Amino acid sequence: MTDSTQKKLTRRRFLKGSLAVGGALAVGGTGYRLASDALGRDYDPARGEALLAGIQPGDPGTLPNLIVIATDDLGYGDLGIYGSRAIRTPHIDQLATEGMRLTNFCSSAPLCSPSRASLLTGRYAIRSHVALTFYPAGSPMDLIFRIGGVYPHGVRGIPEDEVLLPELLQRRGYRTALLGKWHLGDRSPHLPRENGFDYFYGAYFSNDMDPYVIYRNEEVEIEPPVDQNVLTQNLTREALSFIGENQAQPFFLYYAQPFPHTPLHASEAFRGRSAAGLYGDAVEEIDWSVGQIMDTLRDLDLDERTLVIFTSDNGPWWEGSPGLTRGRKNLPFEGGFRVPFIAHWPGVIPAGTVSDAVSMNFDIYVACLAAAGIPLPDDRIVDGQNLLPVLTGEASALHETLYYYKGKRLVGVRHGDWKYLRRHMTDNGGYASLSQGPFLFNLATDPNESYDMIESEPEVAARLAQMLDDWDAEMEKNVRGWR
Amino acid sequence: MTDSTQKKLTRRRFLKGSLAVGGALAVGGTGYRLASDALGRDYDPARGEALLAGIQPGDPGTLPNLIVIATDDLGYGDLGIYGSRAIRTPHIDQLATEGMRLTNFCSSAPLCSPSRASLLTGRYAIRSHVALTFYPAGSPMDLIFRIGGVYPHGVRGIPEDEVLLPELLQRRGYRTALLGKWHLGDRSPHLPRENGFDYFYGAYFSNDMDPYVIYRNEEVEIEPPVDQNVLTQNLTREALSFIGENQAQPFFLYYAQPFPHTPLHASEAFRGRSAAGLYGDAVEEIDWSVGQIMDTLRDLDLDERTLVIFTSDNGPWWEGSPGLTRGRKNLPFEGGFRVPFIAHWPGVIPAGTVSDAVSMNFDIYVACLAAAGIPLPDDRIVDGQNLLPVLTGEASALHETLYYYKGKRLVGVRHGDWKYLRRHMTDNGGYASLSQGPFLFNLATDPNESYDMIESEPEVAARLAQMLDDWDAEMEKNVRGWR
Repeated sequence: MTDSTQKKLTRRRFLKGSLAVGGALAVGGTGYRLASDALGRDYDPARGEALLAGIQPGDPGTLPNLIVIATDDLGYGDLGIYGSRAIRTPHIDQLATEGMRLTNFCSSAPLCSPSRASLLTGRYAIRSHVALTFYPAGSPMDLIFRIGGVYPHGVRGIPEDEVLLPELLQRRGYRTALLGKWHLGDRSPHLPRENGFDYFYGAYFSNDMDPYVIYRNEEVEIEPPVDQNVLTQNLTREALSFIGENQAQPFFLYYAQPFPHTPLHASEAFRGRSAAGLYGDAVEEIDWSVGQIMDTLRDLDLDERTLVIFTSDNGPWWEGSPGLTRGRKNLPFEGGFRVPFIAHWPGVIPAGTVSDAVSMNFDIYVACLAAAGIPLPDDRIVDGQNLLPVLTGEASALHETLYYYKGKRLVGVRHGDWKYLRRHMTDNGGYASLSQGPFLFNLATDPNESYDMIESEPEVAARLAQMLDDWDAEMEKNVRGWR
Repeated sequence: MTDSTQKKLTRRRFLKGSLAVGGALAVGGTGYRLASDALGRDYDPARGEALLAGIQPGDPGTLPNLIVIATDDLGYGDLGIYGSRAIRTPHIDQLATEGMRLTNFCSSAPLCSPSRASLLTGRYAIRSHVALTFYPAGSPMDLIFRIGGVYPHGVRGIPEDEVLLPELLQRRGYRTALLGKWHLGDRSPHLPRENGFDYFYGAYFSNDMDPYVIYRNEEVEIEPPVDQNVLTQNLTREALSFIGENQAQPFFLYYAQPFPHTPLHASEAFRGRSAAGLYGDAVEEIDWSVGQIMDTLRDLDLDERTLVIFTSDNGPWWEGSPGLTRGRKNLPFEGGFRVPFIAHWPGVIPAGTVSDAVSMNFDIYVACLAAAGIPLPDDRIVDGQNLLPVLTGEASALHETLYYYKGKRLVGVRHGDWKYLRRHMTDNGGYASLSQGPFLFNLATDPNESYDMIESEPEVAARLAQMLDDWDAEMEKNVRGWR
């Protein structure tokens, strides 16, 4: 048992005794730790222990390494291979020309924390109550959100009863590291090393949140003000070290790049280099960073034993290009959800392939488990499906139906080429951000979500509207998805 | 002198005497008519009379007919020839394959009334104080806007001292008609026939405003509730009649299509026909209407003697596609301003040509005057430039600099490929419609306005910011542009 797992279990026992009084202290300062775990009657921090205990260590010689590079707020149109005319990303493009690129891959949420929760739990973020972005505990936004009841059940981080990808991989024998942005809690028991990572270098939040601190494990490595210009350099150095140190054993590297989230930064060598301003400079430096990682994998002869995934946590914010899609971060249009996805695994993923399989970031969880030979958790619903056969070319389709959440609210459903959006705050800031809809779009003929088809296709609209109601009802009964 | 001109002059004389007391009655009910003309010290309803009196009638045998088809809220990406995959517009596309299509043509405003004011005056709409959409006099929105001081100088329609395109053309010997939406005032002296049109069939407002009435000249033709499903059919019938009746003399037809502005409507034959819902159905019916007009021109052997222009008044609203551009109606991004523009004149405009000349809808005014051999008004600044040499292929560029207004506020400038936007309410409705910016975009490499270049190109940004300040100062001194 690793140290962090031991620590977690100790905490779990402590919490079991404390939970009886936790609920009453939901907003008070001293009750913080308890309140953070007052996650309702379905919550049992011990859940998942048996599951984890049942994972068998694998044969290190056969387990592939797993690298997930998740950028922050990178848009669908921001990479050369996805059509950017202003940003050069030769190394990321090369991942695609040597691997597979997806054109219908979505994050599970149009904003940070829930997207990351899905990626690491394989489930809709609402299942872990991580519906919204976390703000630093005690910050004004955190207080406003808590007083306003915005965080479901007062959640303060990824709940302990979730079984995270790195926890499973740890038990399988992987060395696990998170480099970059965590954004799933800033207090115990929500810290990265309490949730399956052997090593952590990075920040608990987005780079626009104060106090922005860089930690190495639980120690402060860089105090505020952090010089963000060198962040990508530092993270790249950490990535190369981690790969080098663990070349003889399977590893899982979750490289959660803090950029191109604002405030934008790039090191001296990249400033002013792109044709897309500081945003492009930051992306081109990320591209360099990816190139460094790939060079290292090749140098260490690890590239054919490593599945590398490159993606983004949601669509672009004020800057960044959603390509041909409509909308941006925080919106339920594709521009908020659709993101680049490239997978690279020479010999396993055919080079230069493109798939339009409909997929979501919780599929990464399942694909990684499949690659590592770990069975899917059977004590809970896993919403993700196995992306691996799509990546290897054995399958051409994945999800028939995907649900779109914005915060706690189910706002849309994609079913085949159809997408139905409930009335929502939309993208026209003319006078005010007005609520509009519902809409029915055909993504095949209308990738820009410009033409409402409700009147033309009333049966399709009714069917999808009903799917939303049914899904809401199902989630109401068992949002946590316990089996 | 035509009847309508006579009527106008009579009114002018009356108003001269009334203006002294008009200002004090700006909001009151009985003072309505006077208040509507309390346009500040620069206002003189008699201005322009000498100019009009100086226009010489032309030789009917040599004057080309002029048809301007201006749709309502049609987006840059809504036509087949502009890349739509969901809407079929063979007749409009044919205009382009037989004529010229522009890729950098903008309306002068991201909403109805000011865009129409520019088209008909050749000037930025702010010069006529038509900064915002007009609501029916006495309607709640009208009252709110008036009480809130939103309408500059309490303007209630296109001011009498403006010299409109049809007024000039009338003096030159053209028969002039407006079919469709006027939206430049709903009370005398702002009515279509008081402003240069011999004939009017249509509505004073947008089709979502109550009471929506169809007038023939000043008589109610269709009382509310108007069956909007047959509007395009009715307007087409009127267009064909007008062309037929005036085939022996030069005519100017301003066909201001009320669709695809919401509420969307199409006749039985077109409902459910497109792959873009009712929006697409409405556009495909407009396409049919254009086809009818072109057939008639050909049948009457008028096509080579007629300049036909097809465009839109601003970008798309909730529905409709802005193509690859960012934003929608009401926003200062290109999606709010950039619209399709096609010009057709066999033998004069080379077939199948495309120009990226930067242009704005007030250029239509100048092009029409040039085609009709009418000198530009010299008693006022005309912001438009002569688009005709671009259309004939003699020139490849037009404006170096264009200003973007949203309401009364100067919000941006395009200079070459650079576009600078002041801080403004932008397009991300995530939490709220937040004010963001300033931004500097390079439209050549970044047509989607996704990458702010202010930090990378501080000198360009400073230059364009200064241009905005200078333009504001110039307009402050002489917004009406009198010479």
